[in-house]
Amino acid sequence: MRIPIDRQSDTPLYRQIEKFLREGILSGNLAPDTRLPATRKLARDLGVNRITVGNAYAELEADGLICSQVGSGTYVLPPWQIQPAPGAEAVGPWPLWQQDLRRRGDTSKRDLILKLLSESQHPDPISFAGGVSDPQRFPVDEFRKVIQNVMRRDGITALEYGEVRGYAPLRGTIAHILASQGVQISPDNILITAGSQQAISLVTQFLLKQGDVILVESPTYSDALGLFADLGLKIIGIPVDEDGMQVEQLEGLLLQHHPKLIYTIPNFQNPSGTCMSGQRRRRLISLADRHNVPILEDDYVGDLRYEGRAQPALKALDPGGRVIYISTFSKMLMPGLRVGFLAAEGPVYDSLANFKSFNDLTTSNLIQRALEDFVTVGRYQAHLRRSCQVFRKRRDAMMSAIHDYMPRDTQVFAPQGGLFAWLRLPDNISCDKLFPYAVEEGVSFSPGTFFFPEGSSNENFMRLNFSKQTPEKIQEGMMRLRKAIDHMAPWAG
Amino acid sequence: MRIPIDRQSDTPLYRQIEKFLREGILSGNLAPDTRLPATRKLARDLGVNRITVGNAYAELEADGLICSQVGSGTYVLPPWQIQPAPGAEAVGPWPLWQQDLRRRGDTSKRDLILKLLSESQHPDPISFAGGVSDPQRFPVDEFRKVIQNVMRRDGITALEYGEVRGYAPLRGTIAHILASQGVQISPDNILITAGSQQAISLVTQFLLKQGDVILVESPTYSDALGLFADLGLKIIGIPVDEDGMQVEQLEGLLLQHHPKLIYTIPNFQNPSGTCMSGQRRRRLISLADRHNVPILEDDYVGDLRYEGRAQPALKALDPGGRVIYISTFSKMLMPGLRVGFLAAEGPVYDSLANFKSFNDLTTSNLIQRALEDFVTVGRYQAHLRRSCQVFRKRRDAMMSAIHDYMPRDTQVFAPQGGLFAWLRLPDNISCDKLFPYAVEEGVSFSPGTFFFPEGSSNENFMRLNFSKQTPEKIQEGMMRLRKAIDHMAPWAG
Repeated sequence: MRIPIDRQSDTPLYRQIEKFLREGILSGNLAPDTRLPATRKLARDLGVNRITVGNAYAELEADGLICSQVGSGTYVLPPWQIQPAPGAEAVGPWPLWQQDLRRRGDTSKRDLILKLLSESQHPDPISFAGGVSDPQRFPVDEFRKVIQNVMRRDGITALEYGEVRGYAPLRGTIAHILASQGVQISPDNILITAGSQQAISLVTQFLLKQGDVILVESPTYSDALGLFADLGLKIIGIPVDEDGMQVEQLEGLLLQHHPKLIYTIPNFQNPSGTCMSGQRRRRLISLADRHNVPILEDDYVGDLRYEGRAQPALKALDPGGRVIYISTFSKMLMPGLRVGFLAAEGPVYDSLANFKSFNDLTTSNLIQRALEDFVTVGRYQAHLRRSCQVFRKRRDAMMSAIHDYMPRDTQVFAPQGGLFAWLRLPDNISCDKLFPYAVEEGVSFSPGTFFFPEGSSNENFMRLNFSKQTPEKIQEGMMRLRKAIDHMAPWAG
Repeated sequence: MRIPIDRQSDTPLYRQIEKFLREGILSGNLAPDTRLPATRKLARDLGVNRITVGNAYAELEADGLICSQVGSGTYVLPPWQIQPAPGAEAVGPWPLWQQDLRRRGDTSKRDLILKLLSESQHPDPISFAGGVSDPQRFPVDEFRKVIQNVMRRDGITALEYGEVRGYAPLRGTIAHILASQGVQISPDNILITAGSQQAISLVTQFLLKQGDVILVESPTYSDALGLFADLGLKIIGIPVDEDGMQVEQLEGLLLQHHPKLIYTIPNFQNPSGTCMSGQRRRRLISLADRHNVPILEDDYVGDLRYEGRAQPALKALDPGGRVIYISTFSKMLMPGLRVGFLAAEGPVYDSLANFKSFNDLTTSNLIQRALEDFVTVGRYQAHLRRSCQVFRKRRDAMMSAIHDYMPRDTQVFAPQGGLFAWLRLPDNISCDKLFPYAVEEGVSFSPGTFFFPEGSSNENFMRLNFSKQTPEKIQEGMMRLRKAIDHMAPWAG
């Protein structure tokens, strides 16, 4: 075999030999099963050291291009039609399985909105969008010190795997907080999760399979709808009025659709801000029990109440094992902490803990320990009281700005707590179409269509998050929103 | 209506009235649709203020026991057969749906082992169990300072939701590290996850549904097996030899079972410690491509190599979109951090990012930012070099202790890297049965049965994690293990 080698080159000789052979094999010039010369022979042919040839062969063999069999020589292997790695320039064609992926949770509208927001030229935009309360209210410095203390105190333990169910002292604190809200749950029935989103996801993926029916309030939390759609569930909506889910319609839907789960947000429902009445709560539990359907109760801001009397949590009315309760520190504290929890009784608790361990082993131990140190019951309730004071004023500012600036026929659910005002604009105003006008004016909101199960078209709803902005900003933002409406639909005023 | 009230009692009058009516309603003495007296009338009857009666009625109404209709009076509602909340003493009977829960991932053996370990009386146990490397090697103080700096630098931003795909600078760092290992991936094709376990879970749950077939190496990573079983997948195993998965058997299995995914650990396979040969890697990709099956490549410790030449990652050989690559910082750094990642190209990347956002919105932003600050490419590689030096010595100590203390017929795969030695003891030694003897002697290991798909009984295998213990402890631990074997099976020596 004659291989052109260049003794003046910077490329080592063995690399030159390897390269030549590699190109021959990949191009097919050296056909599969071709026997290569023995190293001794090729070394003599080329006038190089035998080790040089051996190194070249070793590289090719390691890459699966040739194969040396003791006693019988070295052979070219079939190239298996492999192309070199494409790097970042890779473009299709993608394999067939990639061309046929499920894509049930439609995010095109969300993506469009994020694009509009990111392209906004406004120097001082005011956001009533999103589900997060005011980050400026979180005591970052205090929390930083808590993390320091925990790392000094616990050392490496804080960075090892923690318990599957979650850090036991934090589960104890959560049980205390729940008890102060009338929910009696043992810490052994609490499972700490990566935010309440993971809790929703675990429960749904564990209890339901593709094609199963889930009952939800209509409208409801958009990222729960997205999850359910992405899992291929059939989503059936129950309308909401001032007293929350219209439980009167439940039995008919249970008989018709045989759902595997009822997902409900009884307090300050997202997005409508309504609270389920006590009577409906009892009736809901009774019906779910009779029809053998589990209830997933999402109590994401149940204690952010500004006035009126709290209803008992569904979990507090649960005769045992009927309701899976979930909540979170994300809304009250900081969303980036990613710590929420679920509470469940009966065999489903162990099954969910087990399923969680297979999903992500454990939730960040360090953050759990820091939270446990940070969130005493007293501090939690003090923070809650202050939050209620601040947010009540913002709610009031939002209500009066809605009255002052929105078109005459606008309907609004006046929320007694939580983060959101839910508006129904006159029928001829599409909030989807309004959105780009609003962004241009420097204000944003969540279009109502995000919150309805697919197929319901309710384009004249919008959700306004009043908790992030000061009363002054609320006033200014709503003026801008009015300008956007006048711009798009001057007849509406 | 005559209600006995006690004016000397500490219980407020309205509470006494409420209690009396509540008991009447719940006992059925006050039947549904009974009309209650008007507040004015009952107040006069009882000689109390009308507001007192109004408050009692309001409480009952809020709890859904009565209902007042303007103009027509106040009525008792049907009680909906609700029992009071049972508190922590709740015992069944659980609702039917709870009695019929799937429980596919069998954890009874894992639970038993954890129980044995927790009950161990040994004063100084030595663990070769678990999949974690030595926590003492992690620079806790350095990491603590990094977290401080990040919180000072980024303030509240570090505690807000981050980007769905993960913190962009960290994705950049990961892309650099991957490039240094020969894998060319754009940061835009990297998705940061809560450890590699979440990456496995997302890919599997997104691409497969209950009843689908997954091909895995046999043996393989136990928590992946647990996940697959819990998801109701059909698990088909391909045997492993010194060169990793026996890809020669793959085509037959593909034709017979039509799997939807191939899960493989090509480097330092868990538990066997073997590396897939270059030829098999190419053949695997080629076959998967021809049969339109995605490959999930779990490269959990691919760069912990103590000797020999690294094979290219499957991802580096991927002609585009065939391989989903996952890895983690957990093994190299600290498992409690819960940060791993996947790399994928083609439409599946966006789908997985979307699916992840519905699963837990985002991964802890603070920890991602701290990692990004902490893990420069240079520091990572320095840490890697030191780890390799330390672990190589431990591997050598383990190999010689196996030679010195294990029964004569023991087979061992000599690993060129990674964390594990994989032993096959003589056929008549069950490692499941050996485990309690070993714990009694003060040593533990992972029984081999954890790592085989259900149905394969290979009780004479065991996995030893050598990376957690010093050479001296390894020597001592293996002496103890020998004692346990002699205790249980004196004939085996």
